[in-house]
Amino acid sequence: MPAPAGPEAGDGRDAAPILPVVEDVARVLAPALAIDVGGSKLAAGIVDGEGRLLVSRRVPTPVTADPAAVWAALETLVGAVRAEYGRPVAGAGVGCGGPMSWPAGEVSPLNLPAWRDFPLRAAVRDLLRAGRTSSRAPSGPVRLHNDAVCVAVGEHWRGAGRGRRDVLGMVVSTGVGGGLVLGDRLIDGASGNAGHIGHVLVQPADQPDSPLCGCGARGCLEAVARGPAVVGWAQRQGWVGEPTGVALAASAAGGNPVARAAFARAGRALGLGIASAVNLCDVSVVAIGGGLVGAGAPLLEPLAAAYAERARLPFSRRAQVVPARLGADAGLVGAAALVLCADRYWTVD
Amino acid sequence: MPAPAGPEAGDGRDAAPILPVVEDVARVLAPALAIDVGGSKLAAGIVDGEGRLLVSRRVPTPVTADPAAVWAALETLVGAVRAEYGRPVAGAGVGCGGPMSWPAGEVSPLNLPAWRDFPLRAAVRDLLRAGRTSSRAPSGPVRLHNDAVCVAVGEHWRGAGRGRRDVLGMVVSTGVGGGLVLGDRLIDGASGNAGHIGHVLVQPADQPDSPLCGCGARGCLEAVARGPAVVGWAQRQGWVGEPTGVALAASAAGGNPVARAAFARAGRALGLGIASAVNLCDVSVVAIGGGLVGAGAPLLEPLAAAYAERARLPFSRRAQVVPARLGADAGLVGAAALVLCADRYWTVD
Repeated sequence: MPAPAGPEAGDGRDAAPILPVVEDVARVLAPALAIDVGGSKLAAGIVDGEGRLLVSRRVPTPVTADPAAVWAALETLVGAVRAEYGRPVAGAGVGCGGPMSWPAGEVSPLNLPAWRDFPLRAAVRDLLRAGRTSSRAPSGPVRLHNDAVCVAVGEHWRGAGRGRRDVLGMVVSTGVGGGLVLGDRLIDGASGNAGHIGHVLVQPADQPDSPLCGCGARGCLEAVARGPAVVGWAQRQGWVGEPTGVALAASAAGGNPVARAAFARAGRALGLGIASAVNLCDVSVVAIGGGLVGAGAPLLEPLAAAYAERARLPFSRRAQVVPARLGADAGLVGAAALVLCADRYWTVD
Repeated sequence: MPAPAGPEAGDGRDAAPILPVVEDVARVLAPALAIDVGGSKLAAGIVDGEGRLLVSRRVPTPVTADPAAVWAALETLVGAVRAEYGRPVAGAGVGCGGPMSWPAGEVSPLNLPAWRDFPLRAAVRDLLRAGRTSSRAPSGPVRLHNDAVCVAVGEHWRGAGRGRRDVLGMVVSTGVGGGLVLGDRLIDGASGNAGHIGHVLVQPADQPDSPLCGCGARGCLEAVARGPAVVGWAQRQGWVGEPTGVALAASAAGGNPVARAAFARAGRALGLGIASAVNLCDVSVVAIGGGLVGAGAPLLEPLAAAYAERARLPFSRRAQVVPARLGADAGLVGAAALVLCADRYWTVD
């Protein structure tokens, strides 16, 4: 069976073999390798055509300034996953923190200072080629996107947005990111950056007490609702405790008024920002994931109230704003979908 | 030549004729009828495959509570345009003020109180059928969208967004509306309402001095930047003059400080709202049309300043925010594109 032609043909893999290669038959139907690169952990897995995570492993991201050391840890992780799975894969999908050049895949993740313009897509491509069982077998496409975009894709494919055509997927964690699937297709934007909901306006842009965002502007959702900003705000109001979102959430659950106020402020900002996005994009589902959502009601109730206050158009009132369903696996599932469901989630090559 | 099958087959037209009908050959290559329904004017025209407006006419919208009287005026206008053109058309595209059920096309335009749940798409379909030269000739598809969406489509197809894949088109007039073309396709949203940039947040949502929007929320762009709101604000600051955007623009051009402040306030709100949209959707061009843009620098300079303040991500800094190019014809050109370029601008039927 020859390698399929078409959109994949320019993906840098070997020319189609003259004679059928047995491995190919498997590859066409094979699961994909999925990789998720974050500032605190590296994850890899094998995802099948139904979105099931067959194998997965994760390790802490090495704390180092050496780009090769980070890559070596990822290579080892991927090797272990592939050895555990033991069969060929259809290709690889990669999610990584931004910014990045897209689709070239040179990454400079804010939370991973060791990598600046690191050629991650090319490196994974070389890794897959090296792992072939025959030098004539194609190694399959390697595709990469922002990690929050991968979470949104995962939630659209197999999570809270399953079966819906128009979905906003979000991650509220160290940053506030997201991805848009509209008309059943992933929206890339002109430079691969669509989905940056963390930079919609939620506070007055012209007041010095509006927190300054990492992007340089005042008033951004991310500046208010990212985990470290929520914890920092609580500390400035006198809250003492281990400076993590988990500890602050426990404190809020225990009734601490400052911790509750901190989550209420973040939840309100999220509700305002989400309402702007829904009014603009007419999605029917917003799936919110990321560690901060673990705070539960102290975050989600003020979020819902602010959303109701600002989403007054009939269509935006009807939209469902719900927790993401796939949890920590969403990024891997979505990364795999870039390869396994390219008709919906991949537009370039 | 049989009628083309496929996406149009369910469009309610007659079954394909057994024998070729000469009219069909022309229809396949024919220009489209375009209709634009607004609260102050009705427009109709004939647009060819290159986006040229071959014929066009407009009349004031009748001031009446009688839905049939408004329809009669539109029917007369369309009849005059078709008589002047004198040849078959490929179908009809219609732009109309919202809200509406979409794609069913029952319209309740805010600025046209005579029509509430008026079945405009069905009425135009009947009109096209009645105008056939043979009862066996298909009458072609009839498609309808929000008027601001049609303007955005027109600007993407033949205006300031030509050749770009990711464009936000806007109309700043009695309201503030828009449409999104992302990845070279019109984004409809879950209910046909994508593009409502008038309802992104630009002022604090929780302050009573933030103007109340027609949607019921506080802080919306439309509540600040729609023409009547700009004029009303100037009046409350003591400006006296004919209460129209044109008169206020002339006053601002003449140096009146209150008129200038009114446009500066609206321009700032537009810049803030556009920055949120570009950060979220990663468009490379924003094309702004509508009567208020005629105010020129007093509106556009504060707009550019506020945009620069809030659009700090590298991709949003690079986006071009420019005046629309097609002027009053954009709505007709875009409505025709729903029929003539269905691959990009029409997803349902």
